[in-house]
Amino acid sequence: TRRFKIAAIAGDGIGKEVLPEGLKVLAAAAERFGLQLEFTHFPWASCDWYIQHGEMMPPDWKAQLSGMDAIYFGAVGWPALVPDHISLWGSLLKFRREFDQYINLRPVRLFEGVPCPLAGRKPGDIDFFVVRENTEGEYTNLGGVMFPDTEREMVIQESVFTRYGTDRVLQYAFELANARQRRHVTVATKSNGIAISMPWWDGRADAIHAEYPDVTVDKQHIDILTARFVLQPDRFDVVVASNLFGDILSDLGPACTGTIGLAPSGNLNPDRRFPSLFEPVHGSAPDIAGKGIANPIAMIWSGAMMLSFLAAGADADPRCGEAHDAIVAAIEDVLREGPRTGDLGGTATTVEVGDAIAARV
Amino acid sequence: TRRFKIAAIAGDGIGKEVLPEGLKVLAAAAERFGLQLEFTHFPWASCDWYIQHGEMMPPDWKAQLSGMDAIYFGAVGWPALVPDHISLWGSLLKFRREFDQYINLRPVRLFEGVPCPLAGRKPGDIDFFVVRENTEGEYTNLGGVMFPDTEREMVIQESVFTRYGTDRVLQYAFELANARQRRHVTVATKSNGIAISMPWWDGRADAIHAEYPDVTVDKQHIDILTARFVLQPDRFDVVVASNLFGDILSDLGPACTGTIGLAPSGNLNPDRRFPSLFEPVHGSAPDIAGKGIANPIAMIWSGAMMLSFLAAGADADPRCGEAHDAIVAAIEDVLREGPRTGDLGGTATTVEVGDAIAARV
Ligand SMILES: CC(C)[C@H](C(=O)O)[C@@H](O)C(=O)O
Ligand SMILES: CC(C)[C@H](C(=O)O)[C@@H](O)C(=O)O
Repeated sequence: TRRFKIAAIAGDGIGKEVLPEGLKVLAAAAERFGLQLEFTHFPWASCDWYIQHGEMMPPDWKAQLSGMDAIYFGAVGWPALVPDHISLWGSLLKFRREFDQYINLRPVRLFEGVPCPLAGRKPGDIDFFVVRENTEGEYTNLGGVMFPDTEREMVIQESVFTRYGTDRVLQYAFELANARQRRHVTVATKSNGIAISMPWWDGRADAIHAEYPDVTVDKQHIDILTARFVLQPDRFDVVVASNLFGDILSDLGPACTGTIGLAPSGNLNPDRRFPSLFEPVHGSAPDIAGKGIANPIAMIWSGAMMLSFLAAGADADPRCGEAHDAIVAAIEDVLREGPRTGDLGGTATTVEVGDAIAARV
Repeated sequence: TRRFKIAAIAGDGIGKEVLPEGLKVLAAAAERFGLQLEFTHFPWASCDWYIQHGEMMPPDWKAQLSGMDAIYFGAVGWPALVPDHISLWGSLLKFRREFDQYINLRPVRLFEGVPCPLAGRKPGDIDFFVVRENTEGEYTNLGGVMFPDTEREMVIQESVFTRYGTDRVLQYAFELANARQRRHVTVATKSNGIAISMPWWDGRADAIHAEYPDVTVDKQHIDILTARFVLQPDRFDVVVASNLFGDILSDLGPACTGTIGLAPSGNLNPDRRFPSLFEPVHGSAPDIAGKGIANPIAMIWSGAMMLSFLAAGADADPRCGEAHDAIVAAIEDVLREGPRTGDLGGTATTVEVGDAIAARV
């Protein structure tokens, strides 16, 4: 039996509350399917750590994590203590870049039992993936301020798109679509307003599309694309987007299916040279942190995604895939039958929902 | 009686179908309220013109339009004939910049009689403004390609934010909120990912906020903000955003109220040194163009916004304001009672809806 080494990082806010539930469910799955999951906990990549040490992570963080098969991550950020751009660029965004997690994979799916904010939509109507570029694009700290603190002050912010970075995310999206039934890719763009990078991005999409004759494509400007998430969510299969546009679409998509408290994500290094990172989309949620009411399902589902990713590796272990399916089935059961946290209209605690899912696995 | 000189530009696609309905309603309002509206039609700022002349507008376009009080604009763009970045940068985006229309004002409002895609929302629940910066920010053609057509190809795209441009849009938003009942401004940001310009933008928002002690503020990252448009649309009053974020929010907001076929906009030069431009948000809609089925209400409502803007100028004419109110009331009536175009579940034509509204004014 292959032993998987997994880093567990709780981070900040509700990250600390949902991570234990995720671990609980993974332990239940490991037990049932005979998996060997070995967790190592790390206290850093959190604002608490920053307050004590003046940096988000120890200098040797990369060495500490490099031998891991995956990172199971809660959430980071606590703006009242540490400005977001420090906490995030010092941890999560560093992982994404330095571990070359160039795919951010985010399923959007409407479940039975989850009240949908969109009128008249039923489970099955909404079931697609957002594939987000995760290492470059609009997320940079390149640029600067000229004439600071004067009337003439101006700021330049640069986005960077490489063919290397763009082609591989497009390729991943087309591969994913090609393996699905509908075989459709929607390319998010804004080539009518952002005049250099986005027309070029469209050109790369055309070039990669040429390699996948069985996949159909449409390009949509990000403004109307967000509108269509609300008006026609059933038309999507795989949506591929730049770092910023993918960030937006992968919050909006889950909102359209009821709550971002369910949305999982994988920050993938498909080459498996570095550990991939699995985390809920929701973030640290300071407004509800410490109350024990956060929905742990995004965290738990992220754990299932992690198993599915491990199952597909070189040391493929089919039991990981089975464990994934069992966890998702348990989530479906609990969403249908309860218990439910407040975001879904229930009164259950984080722990109660975690227990219920673990019991069903 | 002050005579207002207005440029009428149909542009492309459904612009040609909805503009006449807008003009029809404005004529009815002029008649009823004794306004003097003098329209001059221009065939350019269209892809047809481009095909014939190799440019979107004649060299002296600015001189031709400079004496106008306003521009009443249909839509531009026909990607099958002319790439969007050529047609738009050669016309609409040129107007916005060269006529310094630095505010893009877009109301978001749920009307009675319009099926809301969000479950359980009623008219009155959604009623806010998106105030979008309209001249700078992410919309630039600054940057370029390095190592073109090779594996090493990379693209830089620059965004430009000036204090001058940022402060004035923030100021406009705070003024607007200050005159409303709820006095709340939501600032769209992404300072956790876009590391130079957005933290700076947040700082400018704080600085301008200090001038408006009666207005409350919250800052929201664009990802979660789009989610909240769907989940909590009732919490917004005035949303202020950069060029790109405002573009996204002002398509998404109208989608949340049923159809972008209703959404009007004003591209305002509040200093009145240059003509302001009023246009529907929807664009040229090639997919339904030529069929006579486009919803003309966004165009008609844009005309009402134009009158309201003219009413507030130095040569203020209160009858313009009354005409605005009468047009909006007529739109409300028709939305409640029909006729309705296909996007609202009806079978009426563009002309029938225009006639019905004109008859009620
Ligand atoms: C057509 C396009 C360039 C334009 C924009 O992005 O500004 C449109 O979407 C709008 O919102 O007016
Ligand atoms: C916290 C933030 C930097 C991050 C992002 O924008 O990528 C988050 O919103 C996400 O989607 O993972």
